[in-house]
Amino acid sequence: MSCPSTQSGEQIEPLRYLSRLEAEAIEKELLEDYKFGRQQLIEIWGHASAMAVTKVFPLPSLPRKQPTVLVVCGPHQNGAIGLVCARHLRVFEYEPTIFYPKRSPNSLYRDFTTQCEKMDIPFLSYLPTEVQLINDAYNVVIDAILGVDAEPGEVKEPYTSILATLKQIQIPIVSLDVPSGWDVEMGNSEGISPDVLVSLAAPKQCATRFLGRHHFLAGRFLPYDVQKKFELNLPEYPGTECVVSL
Amino acid sequence: MSCPSTQSGEQIEPLRYLSRLEAEAIEKELLEDYKFGRQQLIEIWGHASAMAVTKVFPLPSLPRKQPTVLVVCGPHQNGAIGLVCARHLRVFEYEPTIFYPKRSPNSLYRDFTTQCEKMDIPFLSYLPTEVQLINDAYNVVIDAILGVDAEPGEVKEPYTSILATLKQIQIPIVSLDVPSGWDVEMGNSEGISPDVLVSLAAPKQCATRFLGRHHFLAGRFLPYDVQKKFELNLPEYPGTECVVSL
Repeated sequence: MSCPSTQSGEQIEPLRYLSRLEAEAIEKELLEDYKFGRQQLIEIWGHASAMAVTKVFPLPSLPRKQPTVLVVCGPHQNGAIGLVCARHLRVFEYEPTIFYPKRSPNSLYRDFTTQCEKMDIPFLSYLPTEVQLINDAYNVVIDAILGVDAEPGEVKEPYTSILATLKQIQIPIVSLDVPSGWDVEMGNSEGISPDVLVSLAAPKQCATRFLGRHHFLAGRFLPYDVQKKFELNLPEYPGTECVVSL
Repeated sequence: MSCPSTQSGEQIEPLRYLSRLEAEAIEKELLEDYKFGRQQLIEIWGHASAMAVTKVFPLPSLPRKQPTVLVVCGPHQNGAIGLVCARHLRVFEYEPTIFYPKRSPNSLYRDFTTQCEKMDIPFLSYLPTEVQLINDAYNVVIDAILGVDAEPGEVKEPYTSILATLKQIQIPIVSLDVPSGWDVEMGNSEGISPDVLVSLAAPKQCATRFLGRHHFLAGRFLPYDVQKKFELNLPEYPGTECVVSL
């Protein structure tokens, strides 16, 4: 495999795609050695995810009259990142609606939920099974359901039904970190087909099987020594941007 | 007093400048009612402060060969925001150096300190009293010393000496929220004269006495209901920017 080279002719090592264990090891290092807080990381990733959404779907480009976005949140960290993403989209003048069928009792996630509720972001009590209703009501769906938190074999209700619905919709899906229902490493050829993938910190191995239009890397805060230790070979973020197109 | 008007002729109420009590009431509401976390707010404000610095002092514009920035951090929240600002400036390829003479035992602030230390940002053990050394070594100084945390009459050592030094330096100062040593409401005609003021959430009354070149508002996350309740009349942030020039 030949490596890309810079203008100066210097060889660039190819971008590293992480296994599940490597992704977990990086997060552990950030939390335990660097003393980043979970609240801080979720805020950074959620904000960057919202920025990625604004780049692919800028307000004037949306086909619906209202700038509606459906954000589907899972029970763990990926869902909390979705809540933060929804909040920032609201601040950017989008109209997010959240579907969060199983709320975590974790106080950290509860606080992110309260922030959305107090900002009058509506929460759906159920997801329509009639996909045309979703196609008509929203411009885009954000999949913040499972991320790296669950393997395909472990997906249970209500998420199996939600994923079955998302497989049928025609509006674009933005998946955060790992498309829900995909294996972190192997992907899932029969799973959902997101249009946009936002890889958090570094892409996971399944991202090599991503066939959508836009792949972003989000979360420009990863310390240089962590990038080096895990040989991530991340691209440079332009200017002061918090996302970069891969 | 006449109010500015929009292009459509609609009257815009003038921007509200907050008293100390109002600033405290807003922060209390964010923390207690909206359930924002302190870690989250400090991260948002520190990132936005770094963004403001990059706007006034973009890397190619810096007069020194190295893109050095001295960040002086106080013992409370303003200092923690300075630590986060320094970390983001490092990520943006600046070379921050931190002077943090009295470290808080608060574990939240300690964690922000560790993040900087582990990212190899140097910490000064003392501030040179010879101001020419500071003028020669740095492009800009960030004043994250006292903010709204202390009234002028309460300023003690080592901060009185630090402020005496900062009054003499020739390089520009960026003050976060409230120039250190200024009264939140009355300012301080004999205090430091920052070139740039970054007001966090909303400007404080002392900002009406700010005579520097650039005044930014930072932290685009304030819920609309909070803006309305406190009649802040904030300007619109452009696009997806987290700072706006006032």
